[in-house]
Amino acid sequence: MKQLKNNVRKIVEHKYFTNIVITVILLNAIMIGLETYPVLYSENESIFQLFEVFFLWFFTIEIAMRMLSEKKLFHFFKSSWNVFDFIIVAGVLLFSGTYFLSAIRILRVFRVLRAITVIPSLQRLVTAFLKTIPSLGTIMILLGLLFYIFAVLGVLFYREISPEYFGSLHLAFITLFQVITLESWASGIFRPIFEASPLSWIYFISFILIGTFIVLNLVVGELLNNIQETREEERKEDKVELTRKELDKLSNEIAELKQLLLQKDVKK
Amino acid sequence: MKQLKNNVRKIVEHKYFTNIVITVILLNAIMIGLETYPVLYSENESIFQLFEVFFLWFFTIEIAMRMLSEKKLFHFFKSSWNVFDFIIVAGVLLFSGTYFLSAIRILRVFRVLRAITVIPSLQRLVTAFLKTIPSLGTIMILLGLLFYIFAVLGVLFYREISPEYFGSLHLAFITLFQVITLESWASGIFRPIFEASPLSWIYFISFILIGTFIVLNLVVGELLNNIQETREEERKEDKVELTRKELDKLSNEIAELKQLLLQKDVKK
Amino acid sequence: MKQLKNNVRKIVEHKYFTNIVITVILLNAIMIGLETYPVLYSENESIFQLFEVFFLWFFTIEIAMRMLSEKKLFHFFKSSWNVFDFIIVAGVLLFSGTYFLSAIRILRVFRVLRAITVIPSLQRLVTAFLKTIPSLGTIMILLGLLFYIFAVLGVLFYREISPEYFGSLHLAFITLFQVITLESWASGIFRPIFEASPLSWIYFISFILIGTFIVLNLVVGELLNNIQETREEERKEDKVELTRKELDKLSNEIAELKQLLLQKDVKK
Amino acid sequence: MKQLKNNVRKIVEHKYFTNIVITVILLNAIMIGLETYPVLYSENESIFQLFEVFFLWFFTIEIAMRMLSEKKLFHFFKSSWNVFDFIIVAGVLLFSGTYFLSAIRILRVFRVLRAITVIPSLQRLVTAFLKTIPSLGTIMILLGLLFYIFAVLGVLFYREISPEYFGSLHLAFITLFQVITLESWASGIFRPIFEASPLSWIYFISFILIGTFIVLNLVVGELLNNIQETREEERKEDKVELTRKELDKLSNEIAELKQLLLQKDVKK
Repeated sequence: MKQLKNNVRKIVEHKYFTNIVITVILLNAIMIGLETYPVLYSENESIFQLFEVFFLWFFTIEIAMRMLSEKKLFHFFKSSWNVFDFIIVAGVLLFSGTYFLSAIRILRVFRVLRAITVIPSLQRLVTAFLKTIPSLGTIMILLGLLFYIFAVLGVLFYREISPEYFGSLHLAFITLFQVITLESWASGIFRPIFEASPLSWIYFISFILIGTFIVLNLVVGELLNNIQETREEERKEDKVELTRKELDKLSNEIAELKQLLLQKDVKK
Repeated sequence: MKQLKNNVRKIVEHKYFTNIVITVILLNAIMIGLETYPVLYSENESIFQLFEVFFLWFFTIEIAMRMLSEKKLFHFFKSSWNVFDFIIVAGVLLFSGTYFLSAIRILRVFRVLRAITVIPSLQRLVTAFLKTIPSLGTIMILLGLLFYIFAVLGVLFYREISPEYFGSLHLAFITLFQVITLESWASGIFRPIFEASPLSWIYFISFILIGTFIVLNLVVGELLNNIQETREEERKEDKVELTRKELDKLSNEIAELKQLLLQKDVKK
Repeated sequence: MKQLKNNVRKIVEHKYFTNIVITVILLNAIMIGLETYPVLYSENESIFQLFEVFFLWFFTIEIAMRMLSEKKLFHFFKSSWNVFDFIIVAGVLLFSGTYFLSAIRILRVFRVLRAITVIPSLQRLVTAFLKTIPSLGTIMILLGLLFYIFAVLGVLFYREISPEYFGSLHLAFITLFQVITLESWASGIFRPIFEASPLSWIYFISFILIGTFIVLNLVVGELLNNIQETREEERKEDKVELTRKELDKLSNEIAELKQLLLQKDVKK
Repeated sequence: MKQLKNNVRKIVEHKYFTNIVITVILLNAIMIGLETYPVLYSENESIFQLFEVFFLWFFTIEIAMRMLSEKKLFHFFKSSWNVFDFIIVAGVLLFSGTYFLSAIRILRVFRVLRAITVIPSLQRLVTAFLKTIPSLGTIMILLGLLFYIFAVLGVLFYREISPEYFGSLHLAFITLFQVITLESWASGIFRPIFEASPLSWIYFISFILIGTFIVLNLVVGELLNNIQETREEERKEDKVELTRKELDKLSNEIAELKQLLLQKDVKK
């Protein structure tokens, strides 16, 4: 058993292993893309299904090998990337006999996302992205509060005037998201309401001003996160490069001085 | 009386007090959201009204207790957050017997905003936001000037061509706000006017260029405010960390040197 | 004559002078705004015209006094702000007898802009804005090049398909400006062309990608200008605060050391 | 031959040479612009064709001279700017006898782009722009992944509901590009689909949130590239200006000190 584990680990850690996995993911992506062309798919259905079976087996074996190569099985699930991989691959297996066809189709498309797990530079980038999210937590709560209050007010005020946009709380949330992206907020949503309710400009303009101000601060926060990170990296070099070099020279000279004085004491 | 005050203060400063208030605000938020569904509301009207009475009493007592816990009553009104809380809670009481139903409904929704007052991290964030506004005062006056001049010109030029958008100064302001968000500025507003007035592109393009330039500088100003704040915090650490440590080492060596020389003087 | 000049200068430099001018400009702004309401204007035409005569005289006298207060007349025209003021005020006088009514109306609205000249903080801000423009010159030439090439190509390709948007070079420029603001670029301009010309997506998407990239760099350049300015101000303080203080202490100690050694030489 | 080369190099490196080339490029640009006016063109067709022949010869000779002035011919093709120039000029010659009229017309317009090669400040700017692109590579791969997955999903989900926008993978890519520019994403694309598919808001809102987040990080990355570059330039001056000057003074004093001590040793 231990012998098997070692052999599997050697294969998993081999430099070609990752490259082969990336290639298969790429192939998977291409096949999924080609499948969207109905004519192409119906004419070569058997080929596409053959490929699908191959992908299913390949990814299952790959995950199994990566699990085996770990010392203990639960070590594998410590990394959330591995959990993500496992769900995507196991999900297709789980649903494969059932009628949840759309779930399988989505999961098969999501297999392309495994490129993030497998390519290290992509994984590092996405990890960095995910890390910046918690620091923006308070601003996001504030944005949620703004959305909630304006959604409730929107339903109270404009339910009758504009049922398409403010008919229910759920619709109001979607409408406010559209308004904050500034898409047709006036021509599509505000202007028709404005004709029936002359004070509605207060509702819309105050929402846009407060909303974009908060979003701007989200963006600025994100930016500062990035700047500070690069700063801290720079500073470490800074300290060595700027001060140490020239201060060392000075310290040496003073040490020499001390030695000169001590030698004089000895001479006497 | 003083005894009562102390007891009240103990309750108000108890760690569970804030948590309970936050929970009630959350419950209030949920009820307000559920109320927007007409079927749900008409079927359970009595329950909703019972909850409303509870919220009314709860927030009134909470504010009263927080007032009592202060040494002097006017201390309570020193914090503008407390004034904000008081207006929202007292407003509902004030209007509750009258026919200003829409005012009451708005104030009841605004009670959710009290989450900002009660949750410290939210309060700090909003305070920080409000502090950045005065520093942007001059740019905002400039933006107001731009809006005013273009609104007057818009009414003078396009009142007849496009009464919907430039029929009065009030409409022109709303239209210019729409133009600066770039929403349907061309397809909805400019193109129809352009057919009747071939030089109108000068009006619109110059407004967009100047307007977005000023707004950009508002954003940059906001950003610089944030950067400078984090900078100043960093610098304080900087000074200690970067220079003091290594300069201290140097200073010590020089002090040692001096002592060595003095000892020699004594020896002689 | 010299006596008159001194008296005029005393008035011009008096602290109330600027305040009165600002008040009159504000009054002028309000009157211009009120004039846009046709009913109000027709009922009080004589009052509005009286005010207009007052403004005309007031600003003429004010400019004249400021000219007189200078040592030599041409000193007045050295400041481009004064030239701007002079053109606006003199323009109304120049056209007042003629039929160029729209020119007079525009100039009367532009008089509100004199607030920038008169209020020092506004003047400083606008001067700062204008100073950042030259540093963005090269990027603006590049943007002009992009617009020109795509405008010519647009006319060549889509003149027949979409005469409204690409009928002439002039129209193509306006259309490309609309595209770069991303307003209805797809729904209004691209989609109808796309139906007739399947490769048109290359034209539009490449223009948007290159265009927004250049505009982004314009914005970044503007931002860096601002950051560097605040930086340079900071650095001046920095140098004094951070290094001089502690290095001075060190230098002093070394000087003392030297003196100690010299004293020993003398003693012998 | 060598004599000829030297003479040509003298001409090419003459200060008037670049100015003349810029002037001809500008003239070319003006002619291309004027050509877009059909009436003007048909009335002066012979003049326009004469100019075209002149431009063709001029640029061919100019490139030939610049080639000749190099020591070896392949040196010329080392600079990608020269390759770019060569393709544009040679392309027109290559196609000139054939029926690829639209290719010739595009290449003739692209000749205006040669301004970038010839004007040094423009060339430096574009080079700087192109250099920032590779550093954004990983984010661009991530954006590509996002687009691919959502395009495939879009075709799977909405092919039947909205054939105009999601009829094929190719159309889905264009639609997603439109969505990420936020142009009519709701009014044009999402709202009609939303009526048929009530869960489509998940697809659109998640795409916009993830997409704009990644684009934001692209922008921030671009910004940081620029900031770091200006930083590094500043730092070099910094090091010299801030530390060297004052540290040199210190070092000198210490050297003096050492000399004083050594002199004493000698005296004894």
